[in-house]
Amino acid sequence: MERFSFAPEVAFVPRGGVPLEGVTIAPLTPPISEDSPFMAAIFRFAPGGRIPRHPGTFPQIIAVLDGSGEVSGADGVGEPLAAGNALLLSEGEEHEVTTAVGLTALIIEGEHLDRFRDSRAAP
Amino acid sequence: MERFSFAPEVAFVPRGGVPLEGVTIAPLTPPISEDSPFMAAIFRFAPGGRIPRHPGTFPQIIAVLDGSGEVSGADGVGEPLAAGNALLLSEGEEHEVTTAVGLTALIIEGEHLDRFRDSRAAP
Repeated sequence: MERFSFAPEVAFVPRGGVPLEGVTIAPLTPPISEDSPFMAAIFRFAPGGRIPRHPGTFPQIIAVLDGSGEVSGADGVGEPLAAGNALLLSEGEEHEVTTAVGLTALIIEGEHLDRFRDSRAAP
Repeated sequence: MERFSFAPEVAFVPRGGVPLEGVTIAPLTPPISEDSPFMAAIFRFAPGGRIPRHPGTFPQIIAVLDGSGEVSGADGVGEPLAAGNALLLSEGEEHEVTTAVGLTALIIEGEHLDRFRDSRAAP
């Protein structure tokens, strides 16, 4: 058993990639590579923070843990986001996330990533 | 963009597997299979909740999002757990998680799963 931290004190602003505004990242896993087919990280948005519109490389899940904000996907229409809400974005889908009050989200990316579907809810 | 929920209202107690005590699960991804090499789920422990001692099938990361509790790994020694703390457990490692006050954790499992290591902190 190996302990580590993903607390705000160890979070950082990544160099390169999408230019995040007021957002820090605390990764839980290594970046995606041949050995690591997926990655998970905690994204913390300060009030007014933003991930500007960009296409995701892989399918991804955005799961809001705390706070609230707004997201738009391929159609560009803003929709509210709050704790307990999750989104599945398809590979290459353009999206943007903004927040007035601040927001904490788990983001998971991976090839062929899918969301959980409750088989009990199937017709 | 597909919306779904992992709010407490959609969480459930899984049938079979480790007998959880006062713990519900809200999966974000499908269970592990050939198509899905990893799974991520939100575990919510009520006060007094417990995942009794058992060996994990895969390596796993337990990331505490809220609340606090205690964890023991292969050596059986209890250690405190609080929001911002994460653990990497190795494949087959025996472990137990308990909480007096309640706890919410993200659990990620997957073959060859590793934790993030900050290369800037390397010697």
